[in-house]
Amino acid sequence: MIYLDNAGTTKPFDEVIKLCNDMLSEYFFNPSATYPSAVKVAEMINLARATIAKELHCLPEEIYFTSCATEADNWALEYGRKLKNGNVVISAGEHAAIYEAAMRLKSKGVEIRIAALNKDGTVNIKDIERLVDKNTALVSIIHCSNETGVVNDISTISQMVKSKSNAVFHSDGVQAFCKIPVNINDLAVDLYSLSGHKIGAPKGIGALYVKRNRHINPLIVGGGQERGLRSGTENTAGIVAFAKAVEIFNKYCDREKMAQIRNYIITRFRNIGNVLINGEEGRNSYFIVSASVLGIKAEVLQNMLYQDGVIIGLGSACSAKSSENRVLSNLGRSKKEIEGNIRLSLSPTISMEEIAVAMEKIEKNINVLRGKI
Amino acid sequence: MIYLDNAGTTKPFDEVIKLCNDMLSEYFFNPSATYPSAVKVAEMINLARATIAKELHCLPEEIYFTSCATEADNWALEYGRKLKNGNVVISAGEHAAIYEAAMRLKSKGVEIRIAALNKDGTVNIKDIERLVDKNTALVSIIHCSNETGVVNDISTISQMVKSKSNAVFHSDGVQAFCKIPVNINDLAVDLYSLSGHKIGAPKGIGALYVKRNRHINPLIVGGGQERGLRSGTENTAGIVAFAKAVEIFNKYCDREKMAQIRNYIITRFRNIGNVLINGEEGRNSYFIVSASVLGIKAEVLQNMLYQDGVIIGLGSACSAKSSENRVLSNLGRSKKEIEGNIRLSLSPTISMEEIAVAMEKIEKNINVLRGKI
Repeated sequence: MIYLDNAGTTKPFDEVIKLCNDMLSEYFFNPSATYPSAVKVAEMINLARATIAKELHCLPEEIYFTSCATEADNWALEYGRKLKNGNVVISAGEHAAIYEAAMRLKSKGVEIRIAALNKDGTVNIKDIERLVDKNTALVSIIHCSNETGVVNDISTISQMVKSKSNAVFHSDGVQAFCKIPVNINDLAVDLYSLSGHKIGAPKGIGALYVKRNRHINPLIVGGGQERGLRSGTENTAGIVAFAKAVEIFNKYCDREKMAQIRNYIITRFRNIGNVLINGEEGRNSYFIVSASVLGIKAEVLQNMLYQDGVIIGLGSACSAKSSENRVLSNLGRSKKEIEGNIRLSLSPTISMEEIAVAMEKIEKNINVLRGKI
Repeated sequence: MIYLDNAGTTKPFDEVIKLCNDMLSEYFFNPSATYPSAVKVAEMINLARATIAKELHCLPEEIYFTSCATEADNWALEYGRKLKNGNVVISAGEHAAIYEAAMRLKSKGVEIRIAALNKDGTVNIKDIERLVDKNTALVSIIHCSNETGVVNDISTISQMVKSKSNAVFHSDGVQAFCKIPVNINDLAVDLYSLSGHKIGAPKGIGALYVKRNRHINPLIVGGGQERGLRSGTENTAGIVAFAKAVEIFNKYCDREKMAQIRNYIITRFRNIGNVLINGEEGRNSYFIVSASVLGIKAEVLQNMLYQDGVIIGLGSACSAKSSENRVLSNLGRSKKEIEGNIRLSLSPTISMEEIAVAMEKIEKNINVLRGKI
């Protein structure tokens, strides 16, 4: 099987699996306990924290581990705000974890303002500028779209927001982390969400970056783990594996190769014809190609390719079962175009040979579906 | 090492570790995706759900997986309530996850009423009866104490509560699940929290039982996983391992053996002398012995035993680093008695031979500390 649904879950690296095994068989102690074996586990957590922090160019104490990025996103929106009753600005391109958390705030009476997307899939900065005012409590803009792979210019946006307001700035960095260079200082964000399983760690681990001196209340309280901001016994294997995944991802990640592979995929789609690449003009992460294949139904193509040894995605797994696609329709795709939408998302371990085989099969099956073969 | 801190974390079973390995290497797909490999993972989650449900004697659809019991406890207290402004009744013996969640509700203006403990460590039922009234929105009483192992008569308490109010009844079942027979119908609770790592699963997985037709809003929203009640990509390895741990725990768990071991420990402490067994008179889970060893400092004994090849606990890991112990002081232990408090907690795999060796070393080191050797 050639696996091209890595934006849903990146296949865990062998080194990560080995480490999880060690954590469960040898380093299973509760890091809150006081004897040396447990203290050792607590130290392993802090080494992992330092690895994640180094990747983001932040301080270890600015990283708080959570059970997933959805928890981190919810936490940021619910407790990251200044001004309890101020408005909240998000974009139309947010992941469901932000969008639904914002809708919940709306149901509690918070004013939610939604900035439009450009045709290239980026968020319309002028629209954010129009929406942000002195009463804006929080702005949350996704860094790299999970649907299209398009990268927003968070640095420019956050500086503009801060010039107009005292709003807290959050960004969902799930599809950006390790996939594009992320320097948290350049981004000038207050809060930033991460996920482990998008970079080859197990599911069940995420993190929230909280800028030093930025006050945030905990979402989950209890035993006071994570310096009082995220209670619950730490997912020790997940945390240590998350840091290991960062190391291994970086080891495999050759950006030049990934750029070539992405360009190759787009060129092949162009040769197939009648395929719209979503967000082609925007700056892209290289790891996601979102394509609307006209005249076919994406799930039929997905099934045929599965039989043929290639696994592709249909867009965000969090919306895969729904026939609607909020993000793609917001960037102007019609219902017909969305019906034919597939998402190819890559692991850094992919080779040009593998992608060539996959594209051959994709082309063949599209032609079959279009009645050309 | 003889490991006697299983109430903090039970050493994961070999079969569980093997299964985690398989989940990460073969069944790593995102269960929300629509292709067969992903659907298979979704089915594995539902098989796991059925195993947990069978153990509780409930329906699979009444189980919602969470990242830990602390999350489940927080969820129950924050969103399980009827009557938004009604009072909430908890006991003085609750885990920090309930106690701190209640204190947060208090800071938001909710009236929190705390029922006292009896000297035997159980919750004073008369006190609960006195505190519950028609305005009670929720009652949360721990099933088996994480400090003492004492079991509360949840069935009697919940029926009394329901006869006096329309309150939602929650119980933290973390130290009860698999360790005493738990039939959710007999308990007559609406909500019940579980944890994986207390029964030999990895850390990072828990669950909340939600009685059918009992409405609860989600704590974490987004992609709509867990039938809309707990969003975030499922911790698939953790979930499947949790169910496997139930099976293996039951395979090893010989209640007669565990009762003998607990009695043996208590007899040995009696022979050592000047040791108070906390909650000795109450019904106990067999898996926890909490002992106040007079005239010594528990952490010194813990260190000496560690050098001698025995790992013991000092009480709840969630409060191990604090010099206070809310639960033990509430059941009437003095500061001096708490200073000498140790917690021996057992895995079902423990043998009488191992515990005899451990008790020999515990006796020797207590005598050294007391200047008798």
